[in-house]
Amino acid sequence: MSPFTGSAAPTPDWRHLRVEITDGVATVTLARPDKLNALTFEAYADLRDLLAELSRRRSVRALVLAGEGRGFCSGGDVDEIIGATLSMDTAELLDFNRMTGQVVRAVRECPFPVIAALHGVAAGAGAVLALAADFRVADPSARFAFLFTRVGLSGGDMGAAYLLPRVVGLGHATRLLMLGDTVRAPEAERIGLISELTEEGRADEAAHTLARHLADGPALAHAQTKALLTAELDMPLAAAIELDASTQALLMTGEDYAEFHAAFTEKRPPKWQGR
Amino acid sequence: MSPFTGSAAPTPDWRHLRVEITDGVATVTLARPDKLNALTFEAYADLRDLLAELSRRRSVRALVLAGEGRGFCSGGDVDEIIGATLSMDTAELLDFNRMTGQVVRAVRECPFPVIAALHGVAAGAGAVLALAADFRVADPSARFAFLFTRVGLSGGDMGAAYLLPRVVGLGHATRLLMLGDTVRAPEAERIGLISELTEEGRADEAAHTLARHLADGPALAHAQTKALLTAELDMPLAAAIELDASTQALLMTGEDYAEFHAAFTEKRPPKWQGR
Amino acid sequence: MSPFTGSAAPTPDWRHLRVEITDGVATVTLARPDKLNALTFEAYADLRDLLAELSRRRSVRALVLAGEGRGFCSGGDVDEIIGATLSMDTAELLDFNRMTGQVVRAVRECPFPVIAALHGVAAGAGAVLALAADFRVADPSARFAFLFTRVGLSGGDMGAAYLLPRVVGLGHATRLLMLGDTVRAPEAERIGLISELTEEGRADEAAHTLARHLADGPALAHAQTKALLTAELDMPLAAAIELDASTQALLMTGEDYAEFHAAFTEKRPPKWQGR
Repeated sequence: MSPFTGSAAPTPDWRHLRVEITDGVATVTLARPDKLNALTFEAYADLRDLLAELSRRRSVRALVLAGEGRGFCSGGDVDEIIGATLSMDTAELLDFNRMTGQVVRAVRECPFPVIAALHGVAAGAGAVLALAADFRVADPSARFAFLFTRVGLSGGDMGAAYLLPRVVGLGHATRLLMLGDTVRAPEAERIGLISELTEEGRADEAAHTLARHLADGPALAHAQTKALLTAELDMPLAAAIELDASTQALLMTGEDYAEFHAAFTEKRPPKWQGR
Repeated sequence: MSPFTGSAAPTPDWRHLRVEITDGVATVTLARPDKLNALTFEAYADLRDLLAELSRRRSVRALVLAGEGRGFCSGGDVDEIIGATLSMDTAELLDFNRMTGQVVRAVRECPFPVIAALHGVAAGAGAVLALAADFRVADPSARFAFLFTRVGLSGGDMGAAYLLPRVVGLGHATRLLMLGDTVRAPEAERIGLISELTEEGRADEAAHTLARHLADGPALAHAQTKALLTAELDMPLAAAIELDASTQALLMTGEDYAEFHAAFTEKRPPKWQGR
Repeated sequence: MSPFTGSAAPTPDWRHLRVEITDGVATVTLARPDKLNALTFEAYADLRDLLAELSRRRSVRALVLAGEGRGFCSGGDVDEIIGATLSMDTAELLDFNRMTGQVVRAVRECPFPVIAALHGVAAGAGAVLALAADFRVADPSARFAFLFTRVGLSGGDMGAAYLLPRVVGLGHATRLLMLGDTVRAPEAERIGLISELTEEGRADEAAHTLARHLADGPALAHAQTKALLTAELDMPLAAAIELDASTQALLMTGEDYAEFHAAFTEKRPPKWQGR
């Protein structure tokens, strides 16, 4: 537990997500398989709040985001979200769209790597959640569809028009966001949208293997790597180099760096503390 | 016609380009085939002015930029442009180079997708025009050459040093702009410089099919997707997500979003209004 | 020699690097082959100071950075750097990390293209040096490993978290910096990390051929292309286009542009002056 804990109590029960934490690895499962894990207002809110809570704890060092059943996530629920937004007023519409964006910010800004375990469909908001993750571990059935324009909305939703060009380049991003075409696993791998392609049905397992590797390693180094990758997309070169220098100077005072040197000298594997 | 139309009359006759508008699709053809569609001062000026006029009309929802004859565009005319610039004074040189840049800004900022239909050579300013488009639909004969250094100029011309790294990455962009090497269609596709590769001789047709699809679809959603892709290259993540939220809240009050839901509920295809 | 030369004398002897300059091509060789060219404090300092000196001379128009022996560079020396930093105080740690970052800034900002000639390992700081170069000419034995997290440090070191996403995209960059995995030549070429793949053992030769081509060409045009590519990563589109316009207007008053036109008119190859 972080020493910087105030009055806010941990949420005892996440009702709209399945959450498990084992030895530093959190697994968050979208578990509404009869609806292809379509997101509801409550599921977005739980993702936002859960990531904020986990970001305040020291106990989580890697997070797997997975979907139960036939696919990862079909996006916002047509009835429960699209239908409901049609009768919202301006302030409510803004609140809703800010909330979904806050989920993406939370994924990019939480102090541990997020691994999306992907099989079947990742559509709409589901595609953006996967895009926001640090790693996309996918099996050959995985497919992405940024289908916002197909419902009459902007392809720039939840940061997609910011993130996708920075992952696959502006040309591919324009095509995918403007047309909402489905990108199957082979193309997704070719254009850099998949981090690791697994055998059929093995995405969850491979995502957990990666999460375990990250959580058992120098987790503070991983967290700072993520923070710098996120921050330096928005910084000029000179400032990025200054940030790198101060970050590295800080980590050189940490336990894991000394442990690496001791282990190297003693010709043994390092025992990482994550600090 | 936009309600925000002032005294400026539409240009009755574009003398340096061929312009056709059919049911929301504009086709702009560089039509100087005996010179491989080499650009003249007047052609640049017409492109700049045409895009500004079309941006003020509601009637255009997609634009195809094509070249007549053996290739797309061989760039600035050696005699009519390079020769003439050699006797210009400082202010004239700046005016000329600003004008070419304004064409690229107009392509990136006009409120409809621009589709470059590419066959044969796209060289110099022709390569940058293609690069600035939202889609590059190319047949196997298409080739790109950013050959500015080969005439003793900077590879950063008309925004190429900004755009190309964001499309193909900094490594490829450095090679292409510094050396001016020709990139043929297979490499261009591999590095993300082509959006759609067609059969030989089919680029114009495929570009028009895409333009028709876009113009008949939720055109305001397409326009906003383009606007966000353009704007968010220059914005930090948090601001991009806020822009997405307000854009999406706005489009959720639009006719096409309601129409999507009605059509989905009634199990029929949506009738898009583009608003 | 530049007319803007003050009191500072050129360094007569670079003791921690091998430096040769022949007809405008500088070759800088990391020459500590028994240690796989592991970098020492003095080698970093020499790289920083050498690039600053060369940037003030007109005589260098291209630079090859190579490694002697079995590989390019294994990164910071475990004993001489990691060991030593463990007993440094805060100010010393910051000084060291700023120095390594200054080397990368110098590579990106020097007014001539830098070509990394790569074979065997490019690890840690060696991988970032290669990444900072304008061209990576590599043979099939070349491999990259951004292994900072493997010693308990941040993957964002010397600008790597800024540069790598801009070269290979955010997805690949996250994977490479977070995990420190080795990227062999075929993958490096596929994701855009290699500019030119040569036959086995031919990287140095091919790098020198490229350097010679660049140095004998319109070198001021190459220098400005590099400067704009570097600067426009950090600029919005409109500003980049304005910078392009003023750069191009300037170069249109230069000797090489006039020479191109004269040579074209006289149907002979241009004699480039690099100015």
